Amino acid sequence: MHVLVIGAAGMVGRKLVERLAAEEGLLGVGVSRLSLVDIVEPPVPAAFTEIATPMAMDLSAPGSAEKLAAARPDIVFHLAAIVSGEAEADFEKGYRVNLDGTRALFEAIRLEGQTEPYRPRVVFASSIAVFGAPFPDRIGDEFFATPLTSYGTQKAIAELLLSDYSRRGFFDGVGLRLPTICIRPGKPNKAASGFFSNILREPLAGQEAVLPVEEDVRHWFASPRAAVGFFIHAATLDLSRVGPRRNLTMPGLSALVGEQIAALKRVAGEKAVKLIRHEPDPTIRAIVAGWPTNFDARRAEGLGFAAENSFDDIIRIHIEDELGGAI
Amino acid sequence: MHVLVIGAAGMVGRKLVERLAAEEGLLGVGVSRLSLVDIVEPPVPAAFTEIATPMAMDLSAPGSAEKLAAARPDIVFHLAAIVSGEAEADFEKGYRVNLDGTRALFEAIRLEGQTEPYRPRVVFASSIAVFGAPFPDRIGDEFFATPLTSYGTQKAIAELLLSDYSRRGFFDGVGLRLPTICIRPGKPNKAASGFFSNILREPLAGQEAVLPVEEDVRHWFASPRAAVGFFIHAATLDLSRVGPRRNLTMPGLSALVGEQIAALKRVAGEKAVKLIRHEPDPTIRAIVAGWPTNFDARRAEGLGFAAENSFDDIIRIHIEDELGGAI
Repeated sequence: MHVLVIGAAGMVGRKLVERLAAEEGLLGVGVSRLSLVDIVEPPVPAAFTEIATPMAMDLSAPGSAEKLAAARPDIVFHLAAIVSGEAEADFEKGYRVNLDGTRALFEAIRLEGQTEPYRPRVVFASSIAVFGAPFPDRIGDEFFATPLTSYGTQKAIAELLLSDYSRRGFFDGVGLRLPTICIRPGKPNKAASGFFSNILREPLAGQEAVLPVEEDVRHWFASPRAAVGFFIHAATLDLSRVGPRRNLTMPGLSALVGEQIAALKRVAGEKAVKLIRHEPDPTIRAIVAGWPTNFDARRAEGLGFAAENSFDDIIRIHIEDELGGAI
Repeated sequence: MHVLVIGAAGMVGRKLVERLAAEEGLLGVGVSRLSLVDIVEPPVPAAFTEIATPMAMDLSAPGSAEKLAAARPDIVFHLAAIVSGEAEADFEKGYRVNLDGTRALFEAIRLEGQTEPYRPRVVFASSIAVFGAPFPDRIGDEFFATPLTSYGTQKAIAELLLSDYSRRGFFDGVGLRLPTICIRPGKPNKAASGFFSNILREPLAGQEAVLPVEEDVRHWFASPRAAVGFFIHAATLDLSRVGPRRNLTMPGLSALVGEQIAALKRVAGEKAVKLIRHEPDPTIRAIVAGWPTNFDARRAEGLGFAAENSFDDIIRIHIEDELGGAI
């Protein structure tokens, strides 16, 4: 089986490739060929050096998508995107990469199928940013998409294209609306959502972290491991069970910042909690207030997608996967 | 005030222009300049010969949208589209005209505003085709868009773009999801929805009409006059009352085919009803089964949009507007 990962240098993309390498036959059959694409050349796990082709490529550049489709991968994981903040700051770049790049990929697959039948599985990384406030207490599977960012708009449009191209039989697509991934490994970043990870990851490493909002802020989370699991599951899922509504809100954990901190205390003790410095930032508070806090992700759960049930688990996963199993 | 109507040769577009001509000052101030665009040259009402410029133009062709935006109309009515059946039959044409053409218009307005401030009102004709079965009994304002046609997909994408461009301040947009327009004037056509008008219009003119479905089929209607009213109202509406959710399901009348026929009998007598020939067509029945039947269009009603409350009214409007007031 030939697997293509677009966005393979990103955090979830790298973990997805590592998981494919670690667990042979994860997709039902072995991976015989792996194409790894990102704007910078993606890393290749040792297990895959024989079969992997890493490529530095801008999906939205002329010819890129056609080149990828011409190799006829059986499974396409499309995770590449300009992130929310940058898509808001640079309107044209966001639309070019997130909308035109994705549409170019879909079109290249459609046109590839016109010479000889071709209908790959396409698993697309969407986002809960397709939703915009005000929200009900729990957002159900039939709630409408009214994004309040250009990033969310681009994801919502890609979802519509994915459904239509699937309905027309050009490929077999499924879109996954990812929760906020927590705990993100790496350094603290300036994304408005960064603190959700920072306040756990940094204290676990003995470092201070800044909390810019109150502890009663609620949000929607899944671990990086759960996110990788979503993609693997979507790649092999029987899509006849999904029907024409191809975009699914992934399961997650709805939790207060205070619940994150209580879990940190249980797992790592009071000394870890003391490393969190409260520095209220009204700008971040205002941004976060527009984000969804809770979902009823019934459809995805019924289809076998699963996330964590407690922040203790999310923290333990971070310790296992990033800190060698101990703090 | 400079008004641009794109799709001015279509049924609703023509009626909109005629109404602007008939009722001076309908938009709060007089129309001083009128640009009329369609794929064929639109007709110009006698009252507007001095100020109107009719143009035959493909909005999706290079340079078209830029030319229209460069004239800086104050109000843009965008009604041009490839219809549902054709967009399904010709995938590339549908996307080129309905998506790329609309996006080109929005982009041209955005770029026009970069040289000198420019922020027109844009009123966009969307459709209830953005919804796809299965439906609740009444579709509420927060129900999600999962179109089951490429046409519906293109309209849903245009809605998302309209909201984002409005949010960013590039123009002041509002999208109107039109009910099925009934009674459509003119000849019977082969659109799957054609019979809803045919079974009233033809008997009112003493002609036979074919009914291809049972009388228990329910659908969602508004008259051409109501549709024109939606556009006029949207052009002058205080959009601060609308907020960021710019796409509105228009009010309409939910009615059974049997109720249409009962109204025909009340208005035109049993002899008119006898001209309806029942010829069940399983193909049309199946298509119609996927269409929405009823809405709770609360937001639009609260904003002052109004449609008919009975099919007797819809038939009387047809008699007044198309048949000179008598049958």
